[in-house]
Amino acid sequence: MVDVQCPLCRGDGGELIAQNDLFRLVYANEPNFPGFIRLILNHHTAEMTDLSPEDQRRVMAAIFDVERQIRLVLKPHKINLASLGNMVPHVHWHIIPRYQDDVSYPGSVWSEQVRPANPNLIQERIQLAKSMRPALQKVCIE
Amino acid sequence: MVDVQCPLCRGDGGELIAQNDLFRLVYANEPNFPGFIRLILNHHTAEMTDLSPEDQRRVMAAIFDVERQIRLVLKPHKINLASLGNMVPHVHWHIIPRYQDDVSYPGSVWSEQVRPANPNLIQERIQLAKSMRPALQKVCIE
Repeated sequence: MVDVQCPLCRGDGGELIAQNDLFRLVYANEPNFPGFIRLILNHHTAEMTDLSPEDQRRVMAAIFDVERQIRLVLKPHKINLASLGNMVPHVHWHIIPRYQDDVSYPGSVWSEQVRPANPNLIQERIQLAKSMRPALQKVCIE
Repeated sequence: MVDVQCPLCRGDGGELIAQNDLFRLVYANEPNFPGFIRLILNHHTAEMTDLSPEDQRRVMAAIFDVERQIRLVLKPHKINLASLGNMVPHVHWHIIPRYQDDVSYPGSVWSEQVRPANPNLIQERIQLAKSMRPALQKVCIE
């Protein structure tokens, strides 16, 4: 199903990394959160419990594969996983490397900014995040 | 493993609903978000990818069972799922019914409050959330 009003039906929702029959992975390119990846369902479906058990399993397996890759390459202090969709009710997961020096740590990425961004660290992490691309493409194939 | 400094190792982390060998379910009892449930791992483990595939599967199956129950009973506009753990790096999932009238919708529950709470609606939803207890206990058994 496609909803012509939905930004995740109309566009990629980020910088496309790879796509399969069920979902795609994108770089969110959120300026203060390098390595922030989104897994976006292809179909316009609001909730995880609208999916079949097999599709739920595939989505979560991919999220954990992405988490594993982020931990390996970006070595964040913490991983944040979230499926909210209040603004865009089309299943999409946020997979976010968090650092003690990032702008809102230990709050959520949706919380108030508590410190300035560190441009050098951000640049370094953007490069590391780019280097994950082949491994992230593989997540979509498996 | 137990971390004596960790509030989720030292206490239930909410109003206990039920517990099994792997996790427990609690009512978060967040005043503005009735029906907010947490699934908290028993062991002190920081990330989902620290768990075995079988434990990952059990955790996610339980989350989706809780989501199903919340949708059935509380009929929210949206379900929010999140595993953050920046403040307490011990795996715990937030399973949150969201309503267009709640204090921070369509923002996250960690975002700025954008409207006053509606005490009547909150009371009504607290009662509905209480009525889910037997079904939520069953989630811990299966």
